[in-house]
Amino acid sequence: MYRTHNNGALRAEHINETVTLAGWVQKSRDKGFMIWLDLRDRYGITQLIFDEERTPKDVMDLAKTLGREFVIQVTGKVIERESKNAKMATGDVELLVEKLEVLNEAKTPPFTIEDTTDGGEDLRMKYRYLDIRRNPVKEKLIFRHKVSIAVRNYLSEQGFIEVETPYLIKSTPEGARDFVVPSRMNEGQFYALPQSPQTFKQLLMVGGMDKYFQIVKCFRDEDLRADRQPEFTQIDCEMAFVEQEDILNIFEGLTKHLLKEVVGFEIENFPRMTYDEAMAKYGNDKPDIRFGMEFCPLTPKGGTDFGFGVFDNAELVNAINVEGCADYSRKQIDELINWVKRPQIGATGLIWVKYNSDGSLSSSVNKFFDEEYLKHFAEATQSKPGDLILIMAGETYKTRTQLSALRMELATRLGLRKSDEFAPLWVVDFPLLEWDEETERYHAMHHPFTSPKPGQMELLNTNPGDVKANAYDLVLNGNEIGGGSIRIHDKETQSKMFDYLGFSKEEAQAQFGFLMDAFQYGAPPHGGLAFGLDRLVAILGGQETIRDFIAFPKNNAGRDVMIDAPATIDAAQLEELNLKVTI
Amino acid sequence: MYRTHNNGALRAEHINETVTLAGWVQKSRDKGFMIWLDLRDRYGITQLIFDEERTPKDVMDLAKTLGREFVIQVTGKVIERESKNAKMATGDVELLVEKLEVLNEAKTPPFTIEDTTDGGEDLRMKYRYLDIRRNPVKEKLIFRHKVSIAVRNYLSEQGFIEVETPYLIKSTPEGARDFVVPSRMNEGQFYALPQSPQTFKQLLMVGGMDKYFQIVKCFRDEDLRADRQPEFTQIDCEMAFVEQEDILNIFEGLTKHLLKEVVGFEIENFPRMTYDEAMAKYGNDKPDIRFGMEFCPLTPKGGTDFGFGVFDNAELVNAINVEGCADYSRKQIDELINWVKRPQIGATGLIWVKYNSDGSLSSSVNKFFDEEYLKHFAEATQSKPGDLILIMAGETYKTRTQLSALRMELATRLGLRKSDEFAPLWVVDFPLLEWDEETERYHAMHHPFTSPKPGQMELLNTNPGDVKANAYDLVLNGNEIGGGSIRIHDKETQSKMFDYLGFSKEEAQAQFGFLMDAFQYGAPPHGGLAFGLDRLVAILGGQETIRDFIAFPKNNAGRDVMIDAPATIDAAQLEELNLKVTI
Repeated sequence: MYRTHNNGALRAEHINETVTLAGWVQKSRDKGFMIWLDLRDRYGITQLIFDEERTPKDVMDLAKTLGREFVIQVTGKVIERESKNAKMATGDVELLVEKLEVLNEAKTPPFTIEDTTDGGEDLRMKYRYLDIRRNPVKEKLIFRHKVSIAVRNYLSEQGFIEVETPYLIKSTPEGARDFVVPSRMNEGQFYALPQSPQTFKQLLMVGGMDKYFQIVKCFRDEDLRADRQPEFTQIDCEMAFVEQEDILNIFEGLTKHLLKEVVGFEIENFPRMTYDEAMAKYGNDKPDIRFGMEFCPLTPKGGTDFGFGVFDNAELVNAINVEGCADYSRKQIDELINWVKRPQIGATGLIWVKYNSDGSLSSSVNKFFDEEYLKHFAEATQSKPGDLILIMAGETYKTRTQLSALRMELATRLGLRKSDEFAPLWVVDFPLLEWDEETERYHAMHHPFTSPKPGQMELLNTNPGDVKANAYDLVLNGNEIGGGSIRIHDKETQSKMFDYLGFSKEEAQAQFGFLMDAFQYGAPPHGGLAFGLDRLVAILGGQETIRDFIAFPKNNAGRDVMIDAPATIDAAQLEELNLKVTI
Repeated sequence: MYRTHNNGALRAEHINETVTLAGWVQKSRDKGFMIWLDLRDRYGITQLIFDEERTPKDVMDLAKTLGREFVIQVTGKVIERESKNAKMATGDVELLVEKLEVLNEAKTPPFTIEDTTDGGEDLRMKYRYLDIRRNPVKEKLIFRHKVSIAVRNYLSEQGFIEVETPYLIKSTPEGARDFVVPSRMNEGQFYALPQSPQTFKQLLMVGGMDKYFQIVKCFRDEDLRADRQPEFTQIDCEMAFVEQEDILNIFEGLTKHLLKEVVGFEIENFPRMTYDEAMAKYGNDKPDIRFGMEFCPLTPKGGTDFGFGVFDNAELVNAINVEGCADYSRKQIDELINWVKRPQIGATGLIWVKYNSDGSLSSSVNKFFDEEYLKHFAEATQSKPGDLILIMAGETYKTRTQLSALRMELATRLGLRKSDEFAPLWVVDFPLLEWDEETERYHAMHHPFTSPKPGQMELLNTNPGDVKANAYDLVLNGNEIGGGSIRIHDKETQSKMFDYLGFSKEEAQAQFGFLMDAFQYGAPPHGGLAFGLDRLVAILGGQETIRDFIAFPKNNAGRDVMIDAPATIDAAQLEELNLKVTI
């Protein structure tokens, strides 16, 4: 036995007991006649004391040689601490060391292993095993475990069965790019790694499994944006004999359970909002509703026009009311105007109206609107004295998304996006299709297995962009946590959908023939969803970036810099796979 | 809502309630004026009744058109059944149908969807989604889920943290063949899919995670033997600051818990046996100890030789006592002799001694041994009247493995391998190395990270085959469920081990440099194990084959015949990956 207790265990009740501990040297203070040493492991820190008068000389001498991160084992008596540390769980006691063994030495770490480290991102990635020793990273991994097991137990109690679906499947040109795996036994052929277990979970429904879930790795060979990983984890679910309402209820339950269980947050309000409403009110299909600042479209006062060209020529004149910001300086406002004009946002300008604390109103468009007119805007935006009204005008979609970006930016600056507050909602009735500028055709917004709303299939031929789907997203604090849909479950509709999406009969048959065949043997109505676990865990943990919630993440070039992968492989390996590298 | 109850739910207490059910038509009996129909879902079967006098005519007519596996929804009143069926959970009631909707039609399935099916293996694989509807397959998948969640909760309660390790890692020539994944972003380079998360879990120990587990898919591109899959699932565990004893205790606890929790079997005896002992007593490093028939080496009576060349020239004369088989006929015994002479076993012969019920003894070697001498053999094997002694002689290892094969075969024939009995044991002290005939050198028996027993490192230079490792296997009912070891945790020993195994310094550094580097920054003593979940679940489920415990297994050519994978991929995909297929 290497230890009788871990380093988070000792309390006043252990005083006078002889115990053995093991762990890492966090730091030590050598006063010559006395050495204090913090011994660390996953569970905490215990203070060791080596005392010239009470510790054997050889142990004392050895203790003086210990460096940071040495792995040691000590035996001694638990004694009361002279100066107690109420901040430490073990702060009432210390261990008077009698025996000391160095289990392993350590070179000086390339960065300090403390809550706040001097290590840069790259160095921390290369020595990830050292970074994991730091509390902030370690705690995130433990938190992830807690979320995962809470998900599993909740779904299991609801009658869901976790079924493992295969990782070596078939490549399909639909959606994102697949990672492929050459097959040695089937010459010249390739498996693909799943982007999601979509077709398999649908087949499980055809197979009568009724309630399926899986926490599962998925893969996408996309050019990586910040905070995307080529491999990511999904909570994947599917149910048979359900309508959208059944699914929303179950996963609303799961979300509430997780919030309560792992972060102690009780949700009372779990709104649902249509995609159209979300776009109109927030300019965003994943609105952050922890704060207000909802869009207020402006209309002319009385007459039919504003008498201001910018507004009159605009499809939409949209405003937000920023509470308590009427005292923004000219400089602050100019900065905001420049912010929305950045290429990432692309707005042409920003109009402001100040509802000053003294009740007066002023604006950047004083030339066109007198104070009386501005009052009309203030009413439309429910402003009160002290508030700042910001207005954008132009083409509807652009104006909304630009104003949405501004709304989020302001909320961040004003501290309205509180990491310990949680505001989930369902966004429902997504469009079935979205227009792709590049290929100049409609693509499935969710995926080609999503069913249109009843009776809307006909619209495909006349107004495809208007077709709404039985599709929904779970949004949490302005992040899309996941989404799903009620699926098509009959061959005819599925076949029509492939047809509409530009698959030839042969392609559809070659790639998804097995699914359409399956639909002919008694497929039940079914639907489901998938949550991104990495993001869910990060949001629940009050963070925006997912990387530290992943034990061994890859960098933006898809590389694991710790193990240095990917790498070249042997010529013999390539030959066995009948492959040649062409560069 | 598609249903108010599932098909396993209705009881006498529901009589007179109006309910809605949905499911698949299992079968129907049409008596013209009355139709009985079994409606099936995951949860059970409910009998529906359509009655000319009580069911609307249009419903009655529609009911007559329903074929097997049609998906229907029915509403009606729960009534008491005239002839109750005590074998069915819902056998007290039936549903008098008032409304019927066909949710989906079904073509005639290619095989019958019943507990015993007429479908052959190939057909069932192709239409796996139909096979899963059958109770025996469905129940196995649900059983697997129960095992998985029991494992997770048990380990979690013991303080283990499930950490997800990456799937896109680096190829190493050590061990089995890797599946590789070409990287598009890192031109000409490849990831590999993990054969196990071995190095990552060791790095987690270096990272202070202390107690890690993961239920995780692993991959091996090997020529598939029966009942092997290219992708398989492991329960993977690692602990820091542990000795072998700590690990055996924890996972003995897990095994007992699983047996009690999922199959209701309580284990009292959980023996440990050295590898040497297992080989000597059972000729096998994974002995089935549900029954005896242990090996009894024979020695000459009195003198120094047997006076029988076959025995006297043999390194080992080994016997088993087969209880109650003295009445085997000449034909039965000849069949056994032929059985051991088959090329798969390769024995040259088999000698028998019958301890007849009347107390007399006879044998196939009467010429060399009189009855008095045979009594000596009977004593050595603890035979009693009515038993049959079977003897093999020759080179030690061969004799043992051949006699082991015979022992297992006889146990199967005699019904001694009971599927509802469970006899786990630990086999410990495995050799560190095993000789590989092909490459004419020693290989790591477990893997190159396994530590030799203390003080045995020196033997490497003189008697490498004798070096024992801190390695152990969990054996259950004659199957290796998994194994593990205490690992090397210092750079010097690890480096020596790579050296010994024939890695050049450069190779070792290129492939495992990150691990040896990690060992220099304060690596704790650690060890762990991995259980094969597929096999564990199969054995717990009382089965020998794993395939039906996997939702979508691949065939022996590594193909998924349902989705027809692997398959060729687009020329454009290949080009993006800078690859050319050379056949």
